[in-house]
Amino acid sequence: MGKKIAVVITSRASYARIKTALKAINRHPDLQLQLITGASVLLEKYGTAVNVIAKDGFDIAERVYMIVEGETPVTMAKSVGLGIIEITTALDNLKPAVVITVADRFETIATAIAASYINIPVVHVQGGEVTGSIDEKVRHSITKLSDYHFVSNEKAAERVIKMGEFSDRVFVTGCPSIDLAAEVQKNPEINFDPFKKYGGVGATLDIQKPYIILMQHPVTTEYAMAKEQMWQTLMAVYNMDIQCMIFWPNVDAGSDATSKAIRTFREVYKPDLMHFFKNIPPEDFLKLLINSACIVGNSSVGIRECSFLGVPAVNIGSRQAGRERGRNVIDVDYDSGQIQEAISQHLYNGKYRGDVIYGDGRAGERIADILASLDLTQKTRLAY
Amino acid sequence: MGKKIAVVITSRASYARIKTALKAINRHPDLQLQLITGASVLLEKYGTAVNVIAKDGFDIAERVYMIVEGETPVTMAKSVGLGIIEITTALDNLKPAVVITVADRFETIATAIAASYINIPVVHVQGGEVTGSIDEKVRHSITKLSDYHFVSNEKAAERVIKMGEFSDRVFVTGCPSIDLAAEVQKNPEINFDPFKKYGGVGATLDIQKPYIILMQHPVTTEYAMAKEQMWQTLMAVYNMDIQCMIFWPNVDAGSDATSKAIRTFREVYKPDLMHFFKNIPPEDFLKLLINSACIVGNSSVGIRECSFLGVPAVNIGSRQAGRERGRNVIDVDYDSGQIQEAISQHLYNGKYRGDVIYGDGRAGERIADILASLDLTQKTRLAY
Amino acid sequence: MGKKIAVVITSRASYARIKTALKAINRHPDLQLQLITGASVLLEKYGTAVNVIAKDGFDIAERVYMIVEGETPVTMAKSVGLGIIEITTALDNLKPAVVITVADRFETIATAIAASYINIPVVHVQGGEVTGSIDEKVRHSITKLSDYHFVSNEKAAERVIKMGEFSDRVFVTGCPSIDLAAEVQKNPEINFDPFKKYGGVGATLDIQKPYIILMQHPVTTEYAMAKEQMWQTLMAVYNMDIQCMIFWPNVDAGSDATSKAIRTFREVYKPDLMHFFKNIPPEDFLKLLINSACIVGNSSVGIRECSFLGVPAVNIGSRQAGRERGRNVIDVDYDSGQIQEAISQHLYNGKYRGDVIYGDGRAGERIADILASLDLTQKTRLAY
Amino acid sequence: MGKKIAVVITSRASYARIKTALKAINRHPDLQLQLITGASVLLEKYGTAVNVIAKDGFDIAERVYMIVEGETPVTMAKSVGLGIIEITTALDNLKPAVVITVADRFETIATAIAASYINIPVVHVQGGEVTGSIDEKVRHSITKLSDYHFVSNEKAAERVIKMGEFSDRVFVTGCPSIDLAAEVQKNPEINFDPFKKYGGVGATLDIQKPYIILMQHPVTTEYAMAKEQMWQTLMAVYNMDIQCMIFWPNVDAGSDATSKAIRTFREVYKPDLMHFFKNIPPEDFLKLLINSACIVGNSSVGIRECSFLGVPAVNIGSRQAGRERGRNVIDVDYDSGQIQEAISQHLYNGKYRGDVIYGDGRAGERIADILASLDLTQKTRLAY
Repeated sequence: MGKKIAVVITSRASYARIKTALKAINRHPDLQLQLITGASVLLEKYGTAVNVIAKDGFDIAERVYMIVEGETPVTMAKSVGLGIIEITTALDNLKPAVVITVADRFETIATAIAASYINIPVVHVQGGEVTGSIDEKVRHSITKLSDYHFVSNEKAAERVIKMGEFSDRVFVTGCPSIDLAAEVQKNPEINFDPFKKYGGVGATLDIQKPYIILMQHPVTTEYAMAKEQMWQTLMAVYNMDIQCMIFWPNVDAGSDATSKAIRTFREVYKPDLMHFFKNIPPEDFLKLLINSACIVGNSSVGIRECSFLGVPAVNIGSRQAGRERGRNVIDVDYDSGQIQEAISQHLYNGKYRGDVIYGDGRAGERIADILASLDLTQKTRLAY
Repeated sequence: MGKKIAVVITSRASYARIKTALKAINRHPDLQLQLITGASVLLEKYGTAVNVIAKDGFDIAERVYMIVEGETPVTMAKSVGLGIIEITTALDNLKPAVVITVADRFETIATAIAASYINIPVVHVQGGEVTGSIDEKVRHSITKLSDYHFVSNEKAAERVIKMGEFSDRVFVTGCPSIDLAAEVQKNPEINFDPFKKYGGVGATLDIQKPYIILMQHPVTTEYAMAKEQMWQTLMAVYNMDIQCMIFWPNVDAGSDATSKAIRTFREVYKPDLMHFFKNIPPEDFLKLLINSACIVGNSSVGIRECSFLGVPAVNIGSRQAGRERGRNVIDVDYDSGQIQEAISQHLYNGKYRGDVIYGDGRAGERIADILASLDLTQKTRLAY
Repeated sequence: MGKKIAVVITSRASYARIKTALKAINRHPDLQLQLITGASVLLEKYGTAVNVIAKDGFDIAERVYMIVEGETPVTMAKSVGLGIIEITTALDNLKPAVVITVADRFETIATAIAASYINIPVVHVQGGEVTGSIDEKVRHSITKLSDYHFVSNEKAAERVIKMGEFSDRVFVTGCPSIDLAAEVQKNPEINFDPFKKYGGVGATLDIQKPYIILMQHPVTTEYAMAKEQMWQTLMAVYNMDIQCMIFWPNVDAGSDATSKAIRTFREVYKPDLMHFFKNIPPEDFLKLLINSACIVGNSSVGIRECSFLGVPAVNIGSRQAGRERGRNVIDVDYDSGQIQEAISQHLYNGKYRGDVIYGDGRAGERIADILASLDLTQKTRLAY
Repeated sequence: MGKKIAVVITSRASYARIKTALKAINRHPDLQLQLITGASVLLEKYGTAVNVIAKDGFDIAERVYMIVEGETPVTMAKSVGLGIIEITTALDNLKPAVVITVADRFETIATAIAASYINIPVVHVQGGEVTGSIDEKVRHSITKLSDYHFVSNEKAAERVIKMGEFSDRVFVTGCPSIDLAAEVQKNPEINFDPFKKYGGVGATLDIQKPYIILMQHPVTTEYAMAKEQMWQTLMAVYNMDIQCMIFWPNVDAGSDATSKAIRTFREVYKPDLMHFFKNIPPEDFLKLLINSACIVGNSSVGIRECSFLGVPAVNIGSRQAGRERGRNVIDVDYDSGQIQEAISQHLYNGKYRGDVIYGDGRAGERIADILASLDLTQKTRLAY
């Protein structure tokens, strides 16, 4: 049957970031994939991404409901508590040789704790990066709970080792999200009608003409300001009179504030160049991205995938602070004027040359090979 | 009213390790103590230490039941989950300026997560040390979730900073457990009858004659071996024909195995030089310790308090691996022969000169002063 | 301070059903109200009714997040589990003399269990009624957990006593929802602009002209059919070319299906006589109801308040099966044709004479007086 | 594979009460048993009864840890909450056609709620009986959540039907515990050495000479008095100078008080005619019972099994109030004098003639046959 590799996916973003590794694990003769889906992946409000995953041909081993409704800091904390209770059950049923947890969303620490406490080795994908917000605490805390680290680049590896991890447990695999980008880049034309295929609300845009992509998530510790921040971005785009595809934010304390800003803006301005999407699977999203004039917001996509693809990115605020970035990024504040100026500059410049900062397109393959070759164990102690 | 300082205490051991800081906080004009008791501190099985705490004059702000019964790795994980749910409620009610979490028992991470997620700064006491077992993951993971670090010595401070914490958030206060030891050392005579005052079962010993103290906790990841390990220690002591006070182990996966070893041993050998205590408050315990011939087992008391006090310690197995130790410690395996030999050597040598490795006796004071003087905030990012 | 009366409110519907009792308790010199709000009352998705409650002048003693997101039967069950954990904490903090739980929504059993197990007497409001669906199990199960029963009418009292409750613990108070209806009926004119005051989406209606009110909740055990059922109702109203105010359904397994039907219908038909409201406080809602031509759907409002008010009601499906009803109700199937026919009949007939089936308008007063006069105890055993 | 019948067992007592039904289900060609073990059945403190169950040849489908440690009313309530969360997962994994919940311990309601909410029909065994304490609320509340009722006798059936259940869903099967008693009665001699086989502490008794069996559980709502109550019983037996086998109480708020009474009594009086057992499997226990001179305490065994077996029983206090009883029972107060007098009377009288009140010895068979023949559905509404 092969070595059992459990992977816990709790958001559509982390699915995109691990998908090619899932494929490679599924293909590998010595590995057996056990896919655990949980949190927002199961919720209609966030596009029921589990359906996309199933349609992509992956078997869903477990569905773990763990979000306590409320989207406040208190319910975020309690969701982690419930998540530990539920993921422990799932892992105890599946008894994998190792569990993979992806990146740094608030609920991913539940996987790391559940696995550590029942003595299953933990693999962390995307550790060693630096950003702002609560993610920062979560990410490095998971590093210290993890036994293996599959990181995006040398800089990240260096940080993980500095934190006291043994270097023979740290692997620079690149980020699997870049694999997907690399693959889609080979056939980048948009061979579908996004408005028919994915619905959403708002204007039907002409994708032959320039359009912007807007993705903005609330920054947890600035809960109260999330609405105003989104408003600034929407105003900037609106003022520029350019077509825009807007994606709803993830589940997070504050995301309702962001959503509310979107709804109110729509009612007040009735914008006729904006379309609002809920969720689009990674491949199709990447095609829209590659063909866009620019991405605006604070999504890590602008920093990671777009550095590889050379798509211009306006990165707003502190959410991606500290992440290595390519020539394609202009950093601005949550300020309508600054945002407009940066978009203009990008529109004038056009596409950039790609940078290999977060991977070369073969991370999934590498991850599967390492998992197959390693004798997976728990680490014993700090390196110093 | 002063700055609200919440402290979460989840075991009698962590109470001993923070008590003088609690007193100093209570005394400080600018601070207000909010004491949260939880986990084994509330349970009769572990001596209902909360009663001792209340008798010491501390107000109990919250009682948090969080242990899912079972003492298996699965229930340990679920206890953390339940603990996060419950501690979040307690902290949300109390709204402190900061929360202190002590050391590295499995449930202490619940405090660090609950506080971090609801944006309350976290102070970690006793980070930066190195041991074996799951505690190692827990301790360093809490370091990455914490905003301030009050550590025992320079070596610990150095490790915390190496892990990426900013040095202006790391304070070498010494460990408050040493404060207590220092204080008791001034009046070390046993002015009470331990057998009358604390009951327990087994022989009534003559405390004027030499006696050993035995404290052994199961090592989580060696669950199955816990019973045999305890048996080896009991045999060693039994063979030496010396008086012995034995303390029941903490709540941990495996502690039932340890308890079972004790019970079976008692029934089989009916030892007439052994007395079994459930729990004794820190001060009285320290008096027994100072007057003992030697401490045997794997408790950190042998490494920490006893280095300061110069009490001979036989440290068994890997549980305290990596901790700095004084001249008073002989390290041995879970092996009856080795244990006997080490005890003999200590009995021959007698008391050692004290070492200042874990504090100089003024940690509590220092902690209160730092808390009062700091403008408490959350950290933002990794130092490198 | 007076006897502490805790009331747990978990939905906007139950708030409407207990509000006048809350007022009477607040006014009563011997009683002290402790208001616990939880579940959908706290959620923006369901209109954050807690804000309305606070604006009405009630102090919120506790906010209990307990809904596990997902809206499936599994998450409904788990929400009850989490609710018990959380409400137990709230009640243990407040230490009331008695707890009131209202009606029969799935989460109300959490209150009855939490209180019973920590030995706080339970008062159940609206027991002894008969309907279909899971509510039926919940309602009667709560009756057996409750110590006092405040019921709507003699028939309900009779059923509760038949189930083995002692008659001296059963009181026919009438339902407080009728108090509100009685009060609003004295000044029924709509002195506000509902579209300005409460927003929502869709057409702005002319409230001087006839309009219908549509309120339809999914029936839990027919989860899969919820969407089709809503569709039939929407088609019926659409076909009749009459103005219509539509209210979003409650949180329930299936409510997403109902919501989806509404959204899809709106996109397909772009109806220009329909307006969609999220939530309107009881008084204003009652004014809209009194001035409406008819209410359509399966809400209990059509059976209870409307029997008193004489507002014509088309009651669809099995959700209200078994409830006593007045002359104002026509029962039909989830069938577009039947629904249209019943609406026509009502439009032709106009308003009905009111029936006193669920109360005479003084229930709140009575409830407060009984609570003040009783020596509140737990019941001991079955009456037979 | 046959119809899947899930049975949830949460205490050694309920195992004894359902065991012959489990066997009959296992044997039946059209049924498939899914055994869920949880709560105290998994805990060493209560004898790890799950090991006995496995040794009896039953496959354990799920192990559900659900007890929040503390043994206070608060932790009992929270254990039910956690139990619902966990049992829902187990049932959702197993997808049985029906779930059986046994009797009325505090945690059994978790099964009834979990199953009802995810639309699995519930069978309640032993409804319709009347006792004192919290069990009374739990039992009748479960009746209202259940779809089928397998009761012990006509009187119980009558009560269940009176409570509004349809008579075609109520079956007088007798109690399976009597099946076991009937079977053991055919070969009643004690063919094992209970002290060797089951250990325990205290004196080794001569089972050829008369001995008493003592089983006393704390009554939840009289928490504070549990210790004194146990003390009275122990004094009574001690004063009579007769051999006695004492069994530790179940997990319940207060059981620690009862256990403490036992421990203190042992230390103070060092009784030389008492032996203390933790747990003995049903068959061997029944042999000890049949050969005993008398049973003393408040266990239902004295009322149920002993009425069939004719073993004299001294029933203390209110715990079994309301239960039908045979000629073998003398009811007394928690009073040392009364207890002694009743024991004397029984010793003088000797064994009684058996009564068929709780079954004729073929309940298990009947239960399996009914489950196989019924088209299992959920009930719809109250019968009146």
